[in-house]
Amino acid sequence: MALSPETRDKLKKVSTATLATALYKRGLRGQFIQDVQPLHKPTESMVGEAFTLRYMPAREDLNQLVVFRDRGHPQRKAVEECPPGAVMVIDSRKDARAASAGGILVGRLKARGVAGVVSDGGFRDAAEIATLGIPAYHQRPSAPTNLTLHQAIEINGPIGCGDAPVFPGDVVVGDADGVIIVPAHLADEIAAEATEMTAYEDFVTEEVSKGRSILGLYPATDERSLTDFAAWRKANGR
Amino acid sequence: MALSPETRDKLKKVSTATLATALYKRGLRGQFIQDVQPLHKPTESMVGEAFTLRYMPAREDLNQLVVFRDRGHPQRKAVEECPPGAVMVIDSRKDARAASAGGILVGRLKARGVAGVVSDGGFRDAAEIATLGIPAYHQRPSAPTNLTLHQAIEINGPIGCGDAPVFPGDVVVGDADGVIIVPAHLADEIAAEATEMTAYEDFVTEEVSKGRSILGLYPATDERSLTDFAAWRKANGR
Amino acid sequence: MALSPETRDKLKKVSTATLATALYKRGLRGQFIQDVQPLHKPTESMVGEAFTLRYMPAREDLNQLVVFRDRGHPQRKAVEECPPGAVMVIDSRKDARAASAGGILVGRLKARGVAGVVSDGGFRDAAEIATLGIPAYHQRPSAPTNLTLHQAIEINGPIGCGDAPVFPGDVVVGDADGVIIVPAHLADEIAAEATEMTAYEDFVTEEVSKGRSILGLYPATDERSLTDFAAWRKANGR
Amino acid sequence: MALSPETRDKLKKVSTATLATALYKRGLRGQFIQDVQPLHKPTESMVGEAFTLRYMPAREDLNQLVVFRDRGHPQRKAVEECPPGAVMVIDSRKDARAASAGGILVGRLKARGVAGVVSDGGFRDAAEIATLGIPAYHQRPSAPTNLTLHQAIEINGPIGCGDAPVFPGDVVVGDADGVIIVPAHLADEIAAEATEMTAYEDFVTEEVSKGRSILGLYPATDERSLTDFAAWRKANGR
Amino acid sequence: MALSPETRDKLKKVSTATLATALYKRGLRGQFIQDVQPLHKPTESMVGEAFTLRYMPAREDLNQLVVFRDRGHPQRKAVEECPPGAVMVIDSRKDARAASAGGILVGRLKARGVAGVVSDGGFRDAAEIATLGIPAYHQRPSAPTNLTLHQAIEINGPIGCGDAPVFPGDVVVGDADGVIIVPAHLADEIAAEATEMTAYEDFVTEEVSKGRSILGLYPATDERSLTDFAAWRKANGR
Amino acid sequence: MALSPETRDKLKKVSTATLATALYKRGLRGQFIQDVQPLHKPTESMVGEAFTLRYMPAREDLNQLVVFRDRGHPQRKAVEECPPGAVMVIDSRKDARAASAGGILVGRLKARGVAGVVSDGGFRDAAEIATLGIPAYHQRPSAPTNLTLHQAIEINGPIGCGDAPVFPGDVVVGDADGVIIVPAHLADEIAAEATEMTAYEDFVTEEVSKGRSILGLYPATDERSLTDFAAWRKANGR
Repeated sequence: MALSPETRDKLKKVSTATLATALYKRGLRGQFIQDVQPLHKPTESMVGEAFTLRYMPAREDLNQLVVFRDRGHPQRKAVEECPPGAVMVIDSRKDARAASAGGILVGRLKARGVAGVVSDGGFRDAAEIATLGIPAYHQRPSAPTNLTLHQAIEINGPIGCGDAPVFPGDVVVGDADGVIIVPAHLADEIAAEATEMTAYEDFVTEEVSKGRSILGLYPATDERSLTDFAAWRKANGR
Repeated sequence: MALSPETRDKLKKVSTATLATALYKRGLRGQFIQDVQPLHKPTESMVGEAFTLRYMPAREDLNQLVVFRDRGHPQRKAVEECPPGAVMVIDSRKDARAASAGGILVGRLKARGVAGVVSDGGFRDAAEIATLGIPAYHQRPSAPTNLTLHQAIEINGPIGCGDAPVFPGDVVVGDADGVIIVPAHLADEIAAEATEMTAYEDFVTEEVSKGRSILGLYPATDERSLTDFAAWRKANGR
Repeated sequence: MALSPETRDKLKKVSTATLATALYKRGLRGQFIQDVQPLHKPTESMVGEAFTLRYMPAREDLNQLVVFRDRGHPQRKAVEECPPGAVMVIDSRKDARAASAGGILVGRLKARGVAGVVSDGGFRDAAEIATLGIPAYHQRPSAPTNLTLHQAIEINGPIGCGDAPVFPGDVVVGDADGVIIVPAHLADEIAAEATEMTAYEDFVTEEVSKGRSILGLYPATDERSLTDFAAWRKANGR
Repeated sequence: MALSPETRDKLKKVSTATLATALYKRGLRGQFIQDVQPLHKPTESMVGEAFTLRYMPAREDLNQLVVFRDRGHPQRKAVEECPPGAVMVIDSRKDARAASAGGILVGRLKARGVAGVVSDGGFRDAAEIATLGIPAYHQRPSAPTNLTLHQAIEINGPIGCGDAPVFPGDVVVGDADGVIIVPAHLADEIAAEATEMTAYEDFVTEEVSKGRSILGLYPATDERSLTDFAAWRKANGR
Repeated sequence: MALSPETRDKLKKVSTATLATALYKRGLRGQFIQDVQPLHKPTESMVGEAFTLRYMPAREDLNQLVVFRDRGHPQRKAVEECPPGAVMVIDSRKDARAASAGGILVGRLKARGVAGVVSDGGFRDAAEIATLGIPAYHQRPSAPTNLTLHQAIEINGPIGCGDAPVFPGDVVVGDADGVIIVPAHLADEIAAEATEMTAYEDFVTEEVSKGRSILGLYPATDERSLTDFAAWRKANGR
Repeated sequence: MALSPETRDKLKKVSTATLATALYKRGLRGQFIQDVQPLHKPTESMVGEAFTLRYMPAREDLNQLVVFRDRGHPQRKAVEECPPGAVMVIDSRKDARAASAGGILVGRLKARGVAGVVSDGGFRDAAEIATLGIPAYHQRPSAPTNLTLHQAIEINGPIGCGDAPVFPGDVVVGDADGVIIVPAHLADEIAAEATEMTAYEDFVTEEVSKGRSILGLYPATDERSLTDFAAWRKANGR
């Protein structure tokens, strides 16, 4: 179930907060990746299908620097295979004491057209990554090489990231609040619903800034709120 | 015991660090709200009387989205009732896994003339809140709707926030370091004392930047420090 | 074993990430100070020999404000004795609930020509420190006076800071990722090796930004990578 | 809605694990009090209606030892007012660094016929409490007087305890696994359902100990499992 | 590389502490599973090859109770497939807020001849499991059904458990201190070496209890220590 | 200021809870060592003067197993030098991921007449230590050799242990609740006062078990409480 260009576009214009509420309505409460932040202030939302990478704790004898000479090493392989437009999501077991990746690998993802990268651990070269122009989210910067604590063990299987379940192909959306996972089969309907919700929220935000009370307006329990909204939509072409 | 305009003005010009020391002298060591940060860099200190909101853990059957249709829902009620000039302080049990509030509610607080908002959890729409111009402090951004984990249960009772005790009417002061709670009955004397301390600290900072040693100067154990300070006050109209 | 000007210069031009890898090759996996961040974005790396200060938990009767009237108080003494060019590293037991130091003391360090200051706790007056122009790293801002929780007990002995071992004279390097400790006896060879590594990484970064795959390039398992690098060095005077 | 003797009896014979599953079926996932343990090995389950006590962080000037001379102090008042047969549940904000209560107060609860006591902090005199014969649950022992960190502020209001929501009158059940909160209005039906589930689980346990596979048996997807169970019930009078 | 009966026997007679030191000599510092404890006091060491089960965070729509009606559900399948003599090791992401398994499943493992079970989360029915006679290790008891937080996703792949790397076939050893993972290819030599070390430690323990100093004895830097040990071995048939 | 036999005897008969309250009256709120537990149930209180050992984070090149061949290694030296009747208190930086010590060293302490041993990390060979008959307190068992994370760096200097300040010569008291540090200069008066408090608490405990209310009795705000206590003391020879 590929992510359609229409849904991708819609998701770029809605917030993770709105998506969280739309998922909540469907009983999904744990899709927000806890405790990650963008390395640079986002200008638009990151959107893409999840391509996952799983790390397990590193065993010292299996994680000498020489392992990276193997072209088949899962970390390097994943970087070369992550599809353009996808978001690489890394399960670092919420451990930021060593890096999940660094500037060169994230630069390669950027060059390959990948839509973003997320780790529940930390990236090294964080300042450099922040200038690359590819959305990147992590817990905090971390200089030690990932071999110190992490061994890449599986590409594109189901993982946990920041306590959220992530299946390959799920739709990943990130903004200034953080990153949320929309299950693949719900992406279209959630995108549509969130677009509608966003229109109403934009209307409410405008009204509130003019001094209107939230009672009856948010949510729209007053009839007038809906009438006003209808007029606002017409006036604003939404 | 209302916060007088004079005390409010004084508190806007002193730091939470200086206030913490003044409170420490009176045996109060735990008034700093731990682990909250401003959503945008403060230009002047946030000052206001505490108006509190307490959250308890959400029970699923009591926290469906429909609850917000009730105009008496404590979260919405609190937002409409928090007095202009006050600071809303939210006890989120230090749990930032779901939002304490979002852009629309904080926007409404701003519109109503509220002086600031503090949660020991997290706000959603954090980037939007950062642009509203109302001081806001939290632990970290959090997109999930507050119903996921939080049920608003009490308005303006005594609470804990970030391990600090907060009674309604206590004076809340926030700057770049974070937020501190000045007990209501001490506000005037603490404001006066902190103002004096700040004058001396400003003098010391200036001297230190010129190369003077802190020994004898900070604290003022050398007679000369006091003489110089007297001259500095005169010269600077402090 | 004093830090030579040559080594200091080299270390200013390499990242903590590269240093972490060079240390990793020698079996040193724990030299990165965990969970500290710069108070202001670094423009160049902080480099200096470690001058340490150890805090123990404060006992109330020994930590009244009056203790600072003693010119021999270890915290104040350390600030006056830390050599120009050194980095003061404070063992705050990873406890940021009270300040490790504030703007005046850090200002004095700056005035005395100290190269930087690091605490695994928190600084007060964080916004002010950020403008001083001396590199400073901590966990998070913290307004309460350090007497609340910390008693300075030892100057320039071996300590832990953010889970890293720090011996006086070790070389401390900080950048946007954080701070790493290079053992004194390894400083020259690590600086030289990291300089070489950085040249190759810069070359790789450039190639990657042009679209080249990392396979065979990073690490250089393809002969061509080394040939190209040689040409690049010549062309770039590296 | 008082807890009937029948329901109390049923709840004494089912496990918190079974109750957790029955609640899970109704969408209630957060009713287990996290990270508390019994001070002594339970012989039968603790059951009673919740009578709550809320602590806020202690402010030093309000929490000198002399406060306990006030007969109206909420902690002491709560101990004298908690109804026989009820369970006192204390919201200690998951902070075990000071005691929630000690041997004398828990002894008084025992003498008054209270059914048990739960804190998400810690008790002092833990070894003594363990011999009293009243079920008691906490995080870990803690000797410091509760005034060090806790101020009793509210009796029998809604609270959080170990991340679970607790309303006065909810039914509290504790066994060796810990403590779970059954919402008052569900107590009868949950007790009935859990009793039925327990019968089947006991049957399964017996079968499994004899070597039968869990497939088809647990859950009962094989017709034979139900037939065998019916026979077992008859044979065992369940 | 199957675990030989000889090696199994040897490992039953050595402690996890001794094994940790033998692994440390080979550069393996992270093989101890952090923060798990036995549900009942061990009488002899648990030994077996690792058979693993991995949990990811549960997504609500995929984890209704009905999933257990599927005979192919990985948790149930794993319980039926774990080989006799093996130890089931469960990666619960160190999250004990919901159960990893309960009494019936662990009872089935016992009935099937499995050598033990380890989770870095928590078991429900902990008191019952403690009586089954199969070694079981976890973080703490936890009543909520595992569907609340955990979805079994992979059987017998490489995992992390309590920050230790675990590959299927690694040898798992548990005693009162906890659980350690011996890489499969090292099992024979580590078992042999640890057996020798244990003989010396037993000799030292005896000497120390008689009042002998550890200097020169532990480690054996005095020639006499080795001579005495030789005599002790002869006398004690070790 | 040596610990007198009289004070030692008194301290053996009072609880850490009572001592905590006596210290609290003098403004000392942080003397309880947080989060340590006895390895075996205490029969009488552990009492002795603190003899301290400080660990810093281990640097790999300085912590190979061979270091223990040095008779001057601080850990081994401390074990041989800790005076009979003293309590060894180890600052393990609250890190239990590797052992603070094991059965042989603690056995040697026992043989040398040391009164007890406390670490805010963990001991290996925990089950063996529990049988030695010397009081031992830690956070949790931990099998990895202490070289993995800890380097012994200082003997008998001031340290922190479980967030409590410990100076050599302070009096260490441990019971089932945990361990508390009585500053040396207060030991006599605290012991005397706690003895008196204990008499009253024992009286109250007896009265409470007979059904008497705590109001007026605890604390003794009713005149009758004091009269009854006087009679009880006479009757019980206290």
